[in-house]
Amino acid sequence: MESLMMDRQLLLSSLLWRTERLFHDKKIITRIGDGQYHEYTYREYGTRVRKLANALGRLGIGHGDRVGTLGWNHYRHMETYFGVPGTGAVLHTVNLRLFPEQQRFTINKVSDKVLIFDPDQLALVEELVDLGIPTVETFVVFGDTVPETRLSNVYSYEELIAAESDEYEFPEFDEHDAAAICFTSATTGDPKGVVYSHRGMVLQAMCLAMHDKLGMSEDQVWLEVAPMFHCNGWNIPHTALLQGSTLVLPGAHPQPLDYVRMVSDLKVTGMNAAVTIGTLMRDAVHTSGQDWDLSSLRTMWLGGQAPSKAIMNWWAEQYGTYVTQGWGMTENTPQICFSAIKSTLRESAGDDELLALRQKQGQPIPLVEIRILGPEGEELPWDGESVGDFWVRSPFTASAYYEDERTAENMVGGWFRTGDVGAIDGDGYVILKDRSKDLIKSGGEWISSIDLENALMAHPKVREATVVNIPDEKWLERPLACVVPTDDSLTEDELRTHLAVDFAKWSIPDRFLFVREVPKTGVGKYDKKVVRSLYTDGGFDAVEAKLG
Amino acid sequence: MESLMMDRQLLLSSLLWRTERLFHDKKIITRIGDGQYHEYTYREYGTRVRKLANALGRLGIGHGDRVGTLGWNHYRHMETYFGVPGTGAVLHTVNLRLFPEQQRFTINKVSDKVLIFDPDQLALVEELVDLGIPTVETFVVFGDTVPETRLSNVYSYEELIAAESDEYEFPEFDEHDAAAICFTSATTGDPKGVVYSHRGMVLQAMCLAMHDKLGMSEDQVWLEVAPMFHCNGWNIPHTALLQGSTLVLPGAHPQPLDYVRMVSDLKVTGMNAAVTIGTLMRDAVHTSGQDWDLSSLRTMWLGGQAPSKAIMNWWAEQYGTYVTQGWGMTENTPQICFSAIKSTLRESAGDDELLALRQKQGQPIPLVEIRILGPEGEELPWDGESVGDFWVRSPFTASAYYEDERTAENMVGGWFRTGDVGAIDGDGYVILKDRSKDLIKSGGEWISSIDLENALMAHPKVREATVVNIPDEKWLERPLACVVPTDDSLTEDELRTHLAVDFAKWSIPDRFLFVREVPKTGVGKYDKKVVRSLYTDGGFDAVEAKLG
Repeated sequence: MESLMMDRQLLLSSLLWRTERLFHDKKIITRIGDGQYHEYTYREYGTRVRKLANALGRLGIGHGDRVGTLGWNHYRHMETYFGVPGTGAVLHTVNLRLFPEQQRFTINKVSDKVLIFDPDQLALVEELVDLGIPTVETFVVFGDTVPETRLSNVYSYEELIAAESDEYEFPEFDEHDAAAICFTSATTGDPKGVVYSHRGMVLQAMCLAMHDKLGMSEDQVWLEVAPMFHCNGWNIPHTALLQGSTLVLPGAHPQPLDYVRMVSDLKVTGMNAAVTIGTLMRDAVHTSGQDWDLSSLRTMWLGGQAPSKAIMNWWAEQYGTYVTQGWGMTENTPQICFSAIKSTLRESAGDDELLALRQKQGQPIPLVEIRILGPEGEELPWDGESVGDFWVRSPFTASAYYEDERTAENMVGGWFRTGDVGAIDGDGYVILKDRSKDLIKSGGEWISSIDLENALMAHPKVREATVVNIPDEKWLERPLACVVPTDDSLTEDELRTHLAVDFAKWSIPDRFLFVREVPKTGVGKYDKKVVRSLYTDGGFDAVEAKLG
Repeated sequence: MESLMMDRQLLLSSLLWRTERLFHDKKIITRIGDGQYHEYTYREYGTRVRKLANALGRLGIGHGDRVGTLGWNHYRHMETYFGVPGTGAVLHTVNLRLFPEQQRFTINKVSDKVLIFDPDQLALVEELVDLGIPTVETFVVFGDTVPETRLSNVYSYEELIAAESDEYEFPEFDEHDAAAICFTSATTGDPKGVVYSHRGMVLQAMCLAMHDKLGMSEDQVWLEVAPMFHCNGWNIPHTALLQGSTLVLPGAHPQPLDYVRMVSDLKVTGMNAAVTIGTLMRDAVHTSGQDWDLSSLRTMWLGGQAPSKAIMNWWAEQYGTYVTQGWGMTENTPQICFSAIKSTLRESAGDDELLALRQKQGQPIPLVEIRILGPEGEELPWDGESVGDFWVRSPFTASAYYEDERTAENMVGGWFRTGDVGAIDGDGYVILKDRSKDLIKSGGEWISSIDLENALMAHPKVREATVVNIPDEKWLERPLACVVPTDDSLTEDELRTHLAVDFAKWSIPDRFLFVREVPKTGVGKYDKKVVRSLYTDGGFDAVEAKLG
């Protein structure tokens, strides 16, 4: 029996309809300098979103066409978040931190027709043109003017939209249509493209809005630190707009002290960031020598890895800030779990138990189903002990990578294999034991150890090499290379110079261990667990002693 | 461009999946006598829902078949809320308060195959069988045993499910399929059927869960007073289950003092009820002569009509309870608006302004679009002054009545005409002036009965008041006020003087009826039709005789 309900689609533009009418006086605030802010209301935001939509039409962008951005977190980038998908076009946020060759790959893979970028990315974009991005017909610089450039067919964002009408009727189309694309780095090979739907992004924003522990309600002043070029900024900008929260964006090249100043200046009440930011902000507070009042900050959502107890306690004690966390990934639009402590557990737990519970990755958000499978594909119990592979499914989980054969490795039988490993306790709290063993997460970015190993082993003076993740105070993890030289004359500097050809500076290992043999597993693979535990047990000296 | 997201459907069973795993220890508590409660966990709930699903299969209920209920708010009725739609069958909650002939009409209209009813409804069901409900093949009594009856093919609920397996795989099907049916009374003719979708009910529950002013979070103990046989209990049972809140159900024939006792016994933190309940509970507190501690009650959501300022203030002063409201209707699954005060308004408003704002019906909830049209079908501005017909659309708004020609009157051009009349202010707050049929047109001027009712109820000596339009030779229509005094000393002159502060002379009622109780509809609203027809049948004397 069919229901008799209207067939209204879950489109991003339907969120904007409401925000403009109910929260027209609420603001989007962007940092444009030390203590300097650009601010305007959601009413002005909506007006400019419509102008952008009209401008894209004039540039020949139609339903399903891709528009790329290379931008920091600011109001103009936020305008593309609704202005591009609102028309039925697809927003491809190119990751600023990828290597140019990878950025070129992603742009060509999805055939971006327009590329909108920040002024500081101009040299990069010129390089991309040299490398070859033939589908891009039009370039737009986020700003008032076009800098001196050898690009052709280039506009400034402001001149592009200036003359456009602010009348624009958002079209209606299927909620399953693409709204955005984001690429995720792979253990081997090129980045993999995830194509988000309007439906999934609306549902994900609603799920985030439901969480009272996150508390993205209308009265929040929310600082979006997580980059908007990665996983739709965790879908937080959409949630803020949906709820009518004040949205604060940190602008270009923000430093930890900038976040501190923004919280203080704007009475920020909530923020989301990679886990390192919680530590870096603490350090910035200390080294600044100033007495900051950050007590407005009720919630700090740290992602990517579990925040340490020390960080949770420091923020609670200093400012009464509740540090929380979750678990997400590009393929899940992105949130899978969010940490919220059940009232029944809160009542019975002591302080230490609570802190331990808060270090778990939380419970699956609504609409997400999760399971753990053992080595034979058998489903494991939720007992907090049984460790296996996490699989998820939901209306906002990727069913495939964009035109990519690696789909078959991860999307099996209607489920997505996350590549993460761990357990689930009896109340549905996920406990990550290990991420996909070949990846290193440094400062919120993935570094592929396999890629580094392959590059190292390509060096003529290297016989064997493995790269593992080791704890780091500032970046949480850094790569450590363990190398067997063929020739005693090999130096660290030679390896660094060698890697710099293909790798961004931040992804190159800080430390190199020269050893006689890399420990191996029974089947002859490099045993990273052994390398890592030798390191954590005793530091470099011990490793060198044992391995060297 | 199509997205590459999984095609997971929004089904009610997907909410249950999560509740059973994450909130298995949270409870559903049902009042079964004075201070006596039945309670079990969501784990047991899920087990019994599965047994019911298996039992329905054994009875031959398939996808799309209709299962009727005639029940109060209790755990077994709650089991049908997920057990019936979970299988793909459709739950038809028959309204206990309709006349038997209307109940028979609704059962036949949708061809219920099974009818599950409370023991106290047995005589009624026997009467319905006499009247003729030929599609019903099986009768089930909510309880342990079957009372003496002349019905055939009748089971007790407990014997029906006892032997069933608690293993049941909820099937996957289209989220647009029907989950539930509810009938709404019409001004003329038979009740009209609204067929709810899984999609709409899931989305509506998510929208309710997002409202921090409603605050249906995991730590709530929520008392569902609104009847589960009407509009899916305002979708509150689904929202409680989605969030893992403790759900409290008042059982059969609850009286106002029972609600007071439940709040006190169970430390209830939130409740939803028809607007009269706020007054009746206050009166029950007074007349009980006991000193109740109801301070656990943070939120009281009153629906159907705006709660008076007197009631808002009384609950706030006595117990710190925040009385809030919204606007909904059967055709909207049911919520359209919910009252939440924007932080920007809260900061600038004085106490009186705040109270006035809280008497508006609130802002459209997410995914709902709303408009007001003038007499020529022109769209009116949101200025708080322009009064017209409210139209809505959303993914949970009815596109048609079930096999009913009256669809054409209300569903036009993809919008639903609500039949309500009013204005919208500049922040999107809806101000209901009247049902279009209840507006009073006197000497060419519109008089809002709702404004008069609110003013009358603000008088300290008035407990209930309703205002209806009655024919008048000279003015065509005049307002008639029907008032329940708290105190026999109340006079017409006192009320006239009171109204003269805010109302023009011509809009003040000529006649006041003092009665012991205002007649109410099946869902507890003032029944203006009855007041009006009593008057038109016999004039004032007759009304006073019948009501007084």
